[in-house]
Amino acid sequence: MKISIERADLLKAVSQAQSVVERRNTIPILANVLIEAEGNDVSFRATDLDIEVVDKAPAMVERAGATTVAATTLHEIVRKLPDGAQVTLTADAASGRLTVEAGRSNFSLATLPREDFPVMASSEYASNFSIEAPKLRRLFDKSKFAISTEETRYYLNGVYMHVSEADGGKVLRCVATDGHRLARIDSDLPEGAMDMPGVIVPRKTVGELRKLLDDDDMKIAVSVSETKVRFATPNITLTSKVIDGTFPDYTRVIPQGNTRKLEVDAADFAKAVDRVATVSSERSRAVKLQLDEDRLILSVNAPDSGAAEEELAVAYGDERLEIGFNAKYLLEIASQVDRENAVFMFNSSGDPTLMREGNDTSAVYVVMPMRV
Amino acid sequence: MKISIERADLLKAVSQAQSVVERRNTIPILANVLIEAEGNDVSFRATDLDIEVVDKAPAMVERAGATTVAATTLHEIVRKLPDGAQVTLTADAASGRLTVEAGRSNFSLATLPREDFPVMASSEYASNFSIEAPKLRRLFDKSKFAISTEETRYYLNGVYMHVSEADGGKVLRCVATDGHRLARIDSDLPEGAMDMPGVIVPRKTVGELRKLLDDDDMKIAVSVSETKVRFATPNITLTSKVIDGTFPDYTRVIPQGNTRKLEVDAADFAKAVDRVATVSSERSRAVKLQLDEDRLILSVNAPDSGAAEEELAVAYGDERLEIGFNAKYLLEIASQVDRENAVFMFNSSGDPTLMREGNDTSAVYVVMPMRV
Repeated sequence: MKISIERADLLKAVSQAQSVVERRNTIPILANVLIEAEGNDVSFRATDLDIEVVDKAPAMVERAGATTVAATTLHEIVRKLPDGAQVTLTADAASGRLTVEAGRSNFSLATLPREDFPVMASSEYASNFSIEAPKLRRLFDKSKFAISTEETRYYLNGVYMHVSEADGGKVLRCVATDGHRLARIDSDLPEGAMDMPGVIVPRKTVGELRKLLDDDDMKIAVSVSETKVRFATPNITLTSKVIDGTFPDYTRVIPQGNTRKLEVDAADFAKAVDRVATVSSERSRAVKLQLDEDRLILSVNAPDSGAAEEELAVAYGDERLEIGFNAKYLLEIASQVDRENAVFMFNSSGDPTLMREGNDTSAVYVVMPMRV
Repeated sequence: MKISIERADLLKAVSQAQSVVERRNTIPILANVLIEAEGNDVSFRATDLDIEVVDKAPAMVERAGATTVAATTLHEIVRKLPDGAQVTLTADAASGRLTVEAGRSNFSLATLPREDFPVMASSEYASNFSIEAPKLRRLFDKSKFAISTEETRYYLNGVYMHVSEADGGKVLRCVATDGHRLARIDSDLPEGAMDMPGVIVPRKTVGELRKLLDDDDMKIAVSVSETKVRFATPNITLTSKVIDGTFPDYTRVIPQGNTRKLEVDAADFAKAVDRVATVSSERSRAVKLQLDEDRLILSVNAPDSGAAEEELAVAYGDERLEIGFNAKYLLEIASQVDRENAVFMFNSSGDPTLMREGNDTSAVYVVMPMRV
């Protein structure tokens, strides 16, 4: 294999690939990236056995071929090369080395045979559809904060992407929850997605997927089977196993009968929660909300360190209510609101509370109260 | 005590004070800041028993007095208050609380009695002088990277500030070394500093001092005794114990007879060292320099991962030389060069190497070679 490629193209492709590679590996080949050159393209493939990413870049291929080298070392080298450099990669089968040349810099890296590199088995996908990057970005960005980190509840360690119904129509929906809070985000159903099986997309995949979604004009090709999901742009293909488990019936958690409505400026609310939470001890970060006619008092009482209280002018017309929440959870859902006021729907101080943006029901959050 | 103060003034004063406070404290009062209000000023005092900082700010003092509260909590609260807020601090002796009020925010913090706060004993200083902030900044900024982190060699855990001689005149000199590399920085001797005893300024003090030196027009009042050093601006006074030990005779380490001169663009050199070091294993980050007529070849050979080589056009007229260095040490001294080319003076591959900026001998670095 011998190719010549621009440093910027190489850096972009290798960056995406190396981020999939796990830092601590017991299997040496998994630290490597598989480089395959053919035609006018070179592809970089990396995997952790659960996720595989393939990144294609244009290159001058002088001699087709393939090899594997340490992903992080190659990435570091390319990153440090001067901007605008032309980079030559040459695999020498006899010495088992890959030579990286650019200007007066010359690197020789140890390789492992391409045959040892585990390539993910290809699958039959039950459903293939295409969706605009901003829509997919919103679905995952607004839900991922609620993913559980408890390994014993592995079926909550991801975002549940599935087809559902809202307002009488079908929607593409992402849901995440850790039992304390829940996010349910809807988007209109793309053509061809109707028969998609519901899948739990793992946390790491959600993180890697995010890097494909920065370009507003990009269309993402999505393929889904019972065991795998694939997201692809013209240059990057991200394939991931999905979590083998059943996502719980979240619909029972979303309160339907909450009638006490609080409307508040989301940014002001978040800042006030953040301030009063300062005095609370690390463990029980409980914030108390006292609601009265158009008035919200936020307070924290931490016996050791002190107390804090803050008043906000709000829209609230129902009867007096006191309810407590974990400050971190309140802050996180308040920071999801990007366009309008945050609307909270309460029932009693012991019931789950619902939050949405204005009257928009395509993004709904639920948070469990805390005794204060 | 009752005072009213602008949030920006309060934040600045409390920031400086809280950074001295150690995060893990077994003595509760050391987590607190002592607030003293009198006249038109309020002062904030914090200490870790080795360093004491007092920061004064203008305030409307309605009722003079003093109290102590948790430094980090106060800092966090003030940081989160809206820009431009007017803050009222009220100490209530009966409840033992300090109230912090701003707009509709209200905090009540636990206090500890001012009598319990350890105030550093005042000292007689043998020497008092004044020096421009940029000069003091240069003395410490260019030397501190070489401070040793080995606790057993406690006498190297700081910067040795003392009066010395250079080119037949007296200079104020800062020296730091960890046995592998050394930095010796000179500045002209300020009036009144002649009789200053040499002191080892501890690493943490050097870090805190740095925050006083950002203003180019500031004059810093320096006071030195055998056991203490004090740096003061009109608003901030930083007092620190000095390290109770003898700094070794560093002059014997600085080579006098090195004649083989290499002149190289410092930025290009640092980038090339950084690149070739990429392939080296973490432990032995050795870079080999091969010098020949106006040519420098940098190389690294790491059996596991690979090899790297890079060529630089340099000014070198002496005979062929091969010498190895720790990549990190080479990078650090090369990054000290800010104006001119880096000039290296070599002897043999086993002898310490000297580096300076161009022909300027007021900043001199020594680095020990490594066998490669």
